[in-house]
Amino acid sequence: MESKVSRAFIEKLIDGIAPPNEQWRQKARQRLDTLTKPLGSLGRLEDIAAQVAAIRGHDLAEPVSKAAYVFAADHGVTEEGVSAYPREVTRQMVLNFLSEGAAINVLARLHGAALHVVDVGVDADFASIPGLLHHKVRSGTRNMLREAAMSEEEVEKALTIGYQLGSEAAAAGCTILAIGEMGIGNTTAASAITCVLTGAEAKFATGRGTGVQPEAYANKVRVVEAAIMKHCNAAAALHPLDVLRFLGGLEIAAMAGMVLAGARHRLVVVLDGFISTSAAALAVGIFPDVRGFLIAGHRSEEPGHKLLLDHLQLNPVLSLGMRLGEGTGAVLAMPVIESAIALYRQMATFSSARVSGATP
Amino acid sequence: MESKVSRAFIEKLIDGIAPPNEQWRQKARQRLDTLTKPLGSLGRLEDIAAQVAAIRGHDLAEPVSKAAYVFAADHGVTEEGVSAYPREVTRQMVLNFLSEGAAINVLARLHGAALHVVDVGVDADFASIPGLLHHKVRSGTRNMLREAAMSEEEVEKALTIGYQLGSEAAAAGCTILAIGEMGIGNTTAASAITCVLTGAEAKFATGRGTGVQPEAYANKVRVVEAAIMKHCNAAAALHPLDVLRFLGGLEIAAMAGMVLAGARHRLVVVLDGFISTSAAALAVGIFPDVRGFLIAGHRSEEPGHKLLLDHLQLNPVLSLGMRLGEGTGAVLAMPVIESAIALYRQMATFSSARVSGATP
Repeated sequence: MESKVSRAFIEKLIDGIAPPNEQWRQKARQRLDTLTKPLGSLGRLEDIAAQVAAIRGHDLAEPVSKAAYVFAADHGVTEEGVSAYPREVTRQMVLNFLSEGAAINVLARLHGAALHVVDVGVDADFASIPGLLHHKVRSGTRNMLREAAMSEEEVEKALTIGYQLGSEAAAAGCTILAIGEMGIGNTTAASAITCVLTGAEAKFATGRGTGVQPEAYANKVRVVEAAIMKHCNAAAALHPLDVLRFLGGLEIAAMAGMVLAGARHRLVVVLDGFISTSAAALAVGIFPDVRGFLIAGHRSEEPGHKLLLDHLQLNPVLSLGMRLGEGTGAVLAMPVIESAIALYRQMATFSSARVSGATP
Repeated sequence: MESKVSRAFIEKLIDGIAPPNEQWRQKARQRLDTLTKPLGSLGRLEDIAAQVAAIRGHDLAEPVSKAAYVFAADHGVTEEGVSAYPREVTRQMVLNFLSEGAAINVLARLHGAALHVVDVGVDADFASIPGLLHHKVRSGTRNMLREAAMSEEEVEKALTIGYQLGSEAAAAGCTILAIGEMGIGNTTAASAITCVLTGAEAKFATGRGTGVQPEAYANKVRVVEAAIMKHCNAAAALHPLDVLRFLGGLEIAAMAGMVLAGARHRLVVVLDGFISTSAAALAVGIFPDVRGFLIAGHRSEEPGHKLLLDHLQLNPVLSLGMRLGEGTGAVLAMPVIESAIALYRQMATFSSARVSGATP
């Protein structure tokens, strides 16, 4: 599993990452058991509070600060007719984000998450547009069916952008990070990555994306199969960074970088759907300790998402039949995560409230 | 199914209730399909937005106003040893609500729901306590194993309290109502109600409540069986109000009244867990058109809750393994419901944002 991406670069990406603090998880569990509720009766919220305490490594007295990053990029594979929408929709949706009209804008506003839109590879000239984080590596990836989607240098650049933005978010006081994307064609990339990481057949890891019709769906499955066939020699497992380079996208690389930075800076990293989870799965492949920092915001309708969630052993917070991306499922899970933290911090204990415990 | 409760009283309870407006549901669906997202990609959120439009009967331009009601009462059946906690915990938890230390306080505060705590039958003297809505009908129900839990007059009084509070909430501009409860022993009442309404055996409708141990659980099942045996003659179906009177609780009656008022005033009625859903199932039994106004906030861990949800054909918004009550699961679902409304109202359309539609 030697990667063609330089060893020194990988060392830098994983430097300083340590798993969540199990002592703090334990302390949080103990405190949760003293609060005025039957033992364990807050279910998943208790797990989340304990996980956040373990991630942050303290008693969560700090204010919650939420940010959402949407990474946008185009995909060379769209020339194979894998998407229900034309490629220019990536550009159009970036403009929609900037004018506050997209679903993620509405949700980020309602739930108090600072929203950042990052051009990491959209096939459009945004040079003069304010409000966008300008980090274009290339105007879209190459067509994975013909060649590697990215060069080694491009993968490194895109990963570094996500990593740096994650580090900046942490420095600015962010505690919970939602990670989302926009990129016509990117479910095809995520499906191919999912096949390689989980060993699933293309037909099980490929969904209808934004809504391709049956014929186009069959074509999409064939494209995924052919891309894997082209790049993956079954005799040798690929390093996750090479999976990313051959089959990924610039936004997927950037998200993987942000996941690594999130773990490095001990942020709660909330994944959105299929694409962001594919990025997280690559980050975990690069360094398994990353896993403990992840919360799966929701269960997407894309079939490949379930494969990745099982692979990562993540249980999504929400299951609402969404399949939009943009970080919507991640931001929608934030009120639940914030609720878990607030309950942990603010509830009275049996003794402070003078409530009797369970009858022996 | 003649009830002993007066026909005139029932007529008053159901007066003016009409089902949700299907034209508005349709209009909402049409608008949702013009928004900048793949068709249907917001999943359940789209269903919720359309349901809320149908309930409110307009385009949702009004501000969202959220309230949560917690109805507290004691249960005579606690003398049979059915709960893990002593009866005085009902009183203690009411005091905890009033001093803002309970889970529901934390969640209502975080999510901006006005919280109202109603004494409808706690076995304690709260006369001098401010901040509590004083509507005690009786200091707890009678033991359903020996006699009807309530008299006809008591059932009517408790239903009327919930109905009036629901009407007052509507008059005050509330649009979304969360309904919760506190009452040691009330999972036993809800289990018995569930058996009668769904035909389930006691062992399938009875759970561990606040956490009884195996021996106490077996006793709880026996109590539920015996109560049904005592009051229900298999030869004649009981009217829902008689099910309520024989087996229910004062807080369950009040919640049923509030559900009916919610439907009457076209509010979005968000149910919490097992107990509030048992109240809603009785309200739907009284008048089926009520069903369309209900949103199941979450799926409780109590096994009887699933039976009731299936009976009502409700699909809960959240599934987080909670089993606390107090309205916590209902209030936790409110950010999702509010998200659905905000997306419906605030997202750009394909034409306004100049985003291309799907490729034909």
